[in-house]
Amino acid sequence: MNDRAPQTAEAEDEDDFAPSRAEVVAIEAAVDADDGPQLDALLEPLHAADIADIIEQLTPTRRRALLRLYSGEIDGEILSEIDEAIREEVIDALPREVVAEAVREMDTDDVVDLVEDLDAPDRAEILAALDESDRAAVEQSLAWPEYSAGRLMQSEVVTAPGHWTVGETIDYLRREEELPDQFYHVVLVDPRRHPTGYVTLGRLLSSARNVRLADITEDSFRTIDADEYEGDVAYAFNQYHLISAPVVDSHDRLVGIITIDDAMAVLDEEHEEDMLKLAGVGEESHVTDNAIQTARQRLPWLVVNLFTASLSALVISRFEHTITSLVTLAALMPIVASTGGIAGTQSLAVAVRALATRDLTSGNARRVVLRELLAGMLNGLGLALILGLGGSLLFGSPWLGVVLAGAMIVNQIVAALGGVLVPLTLSRLGLDPALASGTFVTTLTDVMGFFAFLSLATWILL
Amino acid sequence: MNDRAPQTAEAEDEDDFAPSRAEVVAIEAAVDADDGPQLDALLEPLHAADIADIIEQLTPTRRRALLRLYSGEIDGEILSEIDEAIREEVIDALPREVVAEAVREMDTDDVVDLVEDLDAPDRAEILAALDESDRAAVEQSLAWPEYSAGRLMQSEVVTAPGHWTVGETIDYLRREEELPDQFYHVVLVDPRRHPTGYVTLGRLLSSARNVRLADITEDSFRTIDADEYEGDVAYAFNQYHLISAPVVDSHDRLVGIITIDDAMAVLDEEHEEDMLKLAGVGEESHVTDNAIQTARQRLPWLVVNLFTASLSALVISRFEHTITSLVTLAALMPIVASTGGIAGTQSLAVAVRALATRDLTSGNARRVVLRELLAGMLNGLGLALILGLGGSLLFGSPWLGVVLAGAMIVNQIVAALGGVLVPLTLSRLGLDPALASGTFVTTLTDVMGFFAFLSLATWILL
Repeated sequence: MNDRAPQTAEAEDEDDFAPSRAEVVAIEAAVDADDGPQLDALLEPLHAADIADIIEQLTPTRRRALLRLYSGEIDGEILSEIDEAIREEVIDALPREVVAEAVREMDTDDVVDLVEDLDAPDRAEILAALDESDRAAVEQSLAWPEYSAGRLMQSEVVTAPGHWTVGETIDYLRREEELPDQFYHVVLVDPRRHPTGYVTLGRLLSSARNVRLADITEDSFRTIDADEYEGDVAYAFNQYHLISAPVVDSHDRLVGIITIDDAMAVLDEEHEEDMLKLAGVGEESHVTDNAIQTARQRLPWLVVNLFTASLSALVISRFEHTITSLVTLAALMPIVASTGGIAGTQSLAVAVRALATRDLTSGNARRVVLRELLAGMLNGLGLALILGLGGSLLFGSPWLGVVLAGAMIVNQIVAALGGVLVPLTLSRLGLDPALASGTFVTTLTDVMGFFAFLSLATWILL
Repeated sequence: MNDRAPQTAEAEDEDDFAPSRAEVVAIEAAVDADDGPQLDALLEPLHAADIADIIEQLTPTRRRALLRLYSGEIDGEILSEIDEAIREEVIDALPREVVAEAVREMDTDDVVDLVEDLDAPDRAEILAALDESDRAAVEQSLAWPEYSAGRLMQSEVVTAPGHWTVGETIDYLRREEELPDQFYHVVLVDPRRHPTGYVTLGRLLSSARNVRLADITEDSFRTIDADEYEGDVAYAFNQYHLISAPVVDSHDRLVGIITIDDAMAVLDEEHEEDMLKLAGVGEESHVTDNAIQTARQRLPWLVVNLFTASLSALVISRFEHTITSLVTLAALMPIVASTGGIAGTQSLAVAVRALATRDLTSGNARRVVLRELLAGMLNGLGLALILGLGGSLLFGSPWLGVVLAGAMIVNQIVAALGGVLVPLTLSRLGLDPALASGTFVTTLTDVMGFFAFLSLATWILL
């Protein structure tokens, strides 16, 4: 997979899926010139998601100006695409009636997504703009925990009893005025609203009018519990190729439906989260964050690292006598530690990913750990050979070569094992395997790298 | 987002979306006992994707035994879920007629995915099993470059002329016997097969029979070029909430269609790739890899790091005189370097992600770099305060505190800038921003960390 086409900044600027640099420059110019009609003309052909991206990427001053000039055109679609980091700011900048009009057009899942992070007065104002049944649906959804399937679902579901025929169903759909914007299945429910199966629209369209719905249901049918964690929901959609899945409460009653586009967005956010957590960025990061927010997201793990790095310092300080005797050791010791850090990071990234995709389970954990141990030994031997020979020749001391080689082997094994055992242990403890694994593992490889190298040196060279 | 529910190994073993540990143990026991009927009974209720996962996670010996016992039941669905790393092995282990039967059931995009990594004889054998029109479709798809939209699409598209009415279309769908397993749109084409719009099935079902298709098309319609990189296709699906998108050749003629489930799988693979590349794992990693394959995936960047780490050694060796005079410096110097490494990794992860999601563009690059610079200064000051005070008190030397603090500030700024400038530069050069960024950035922070610390120490303390 390493020979895939790269994503480049050039490609991004000319790609089919983002406004070009020239368009953005023209939009900025229209904003600066206070030219509303020109701005409308430039934004009109763009997709709501791209307009939202442009609003996010503008400077705060230009953003306010654009919102003022364009406020009449900000609809539900644009509003639901706006990043949560600036959502409150955008809503506050818009006239009340524009926001009210926008949310009335939105599906309930988008309204939930919009209001869940707003403070109480803003939220109340938006809910007040909805008609009664939508408001009830949004409030029902907000009663489920954050990041649950209940928050992700939309309450608009197309249902039918299983004894209906295709013809009856089509007639019903033609009569019904309030259908969801997008739907992919008709969910079959019994009289107590327990979902019993679903029929794809393709099947419905290609079957004769007299066929009963219960006879053309899909094998792929499965329901999702409303309190299921949204990350697991996204995994299930990807694993089982679901397009939509009915959501049920604890009495197995239908309360809503989740569609794949929302699951895909969650999968993407989960990725972001794993990547940032592995790198020690504490909170979600947004392109709109300022320097103080950015610094604050990152400081916690930096401070932790300051203390864990002091462990390395402590280890080294025990060998000051050795270093004084042979100061070259001070120069060479970071090589072993740093190569161990890379190996630990490699092993860690593979393990965290395998845990997320359920490829690393309690069934094969022992085998995977053994594999890492062997792989660490193999690479340790290979690197030891290069470093040992290089060190011997460069410094004219075969024994120095032996010290470097020995420390390298030890530390590569520690790195490979640490990279898989740390996330496995965190996971067994019910903690997120990505969280802080990086700091643990690099501390481990630093400490062991310095210790192995300096103690071998003390033993062999002094 | 950091307070989301964690994914745990426990949760994974009891979750609704993977076979339980007990089920896997029972399956292993049935395989070991050579008990075919029991194995059938255990696997029958499972989803094809879960059966494939179990096959992947078994030891190679058990895997062969399972394939022998279960070969009659291996169908196209299971086969297309099998990880590419062991696909060849699985196909070779199955009787020819089982494979032939399985591929005949599959949609053409799944056949393409199955055969594209097989060697020529296996591929020819599978293609020979297809009927003529499917074989032509697969061969047409294979003519597009690897990782392109052309490889991802399925050739089965439901099309209709725009002047057809809803009624005519439904009658056609009822008559047509060879419809795709899943379809979400009817694509409107002109007589030269240029796609001109599409109609969702929900719209088709809810409109009266006499409505013309051309009057109920969707705004979301957009086509994808067959040579578009699949990662960009996945981005477009997520950005524009597409469910399916027609694929066109260079003459804008319809050649196939991509559905969101395939785009979601690509998004997931792209993420894996970014994560592993950032961590310096060269190739795709699979749970089925043995230790030698694992070692080989990781050795290249370890060797590179061996050499870049030697740069640090070179820097330190220029200060041997300083270290000999004050050997405590050898113990303290990794603190500054290591904290810089974490800061660089943080900045890097945020930048690589922002480039992938088009949040970091040439339009806001300058602003983002400035923000990183300021954030680096802020965190540098904070960390310098802690480390400087701690160092002063612990070693009773305020000047040592000043050296530690000064080096920390310099290196935090270098880390924050390096973390964003390295991937931006790689991206401008048309290279993958994730590739090797980690090694570059940690080398930079190591070298600068040691240099800043030791040169300040030489200047101030000696």
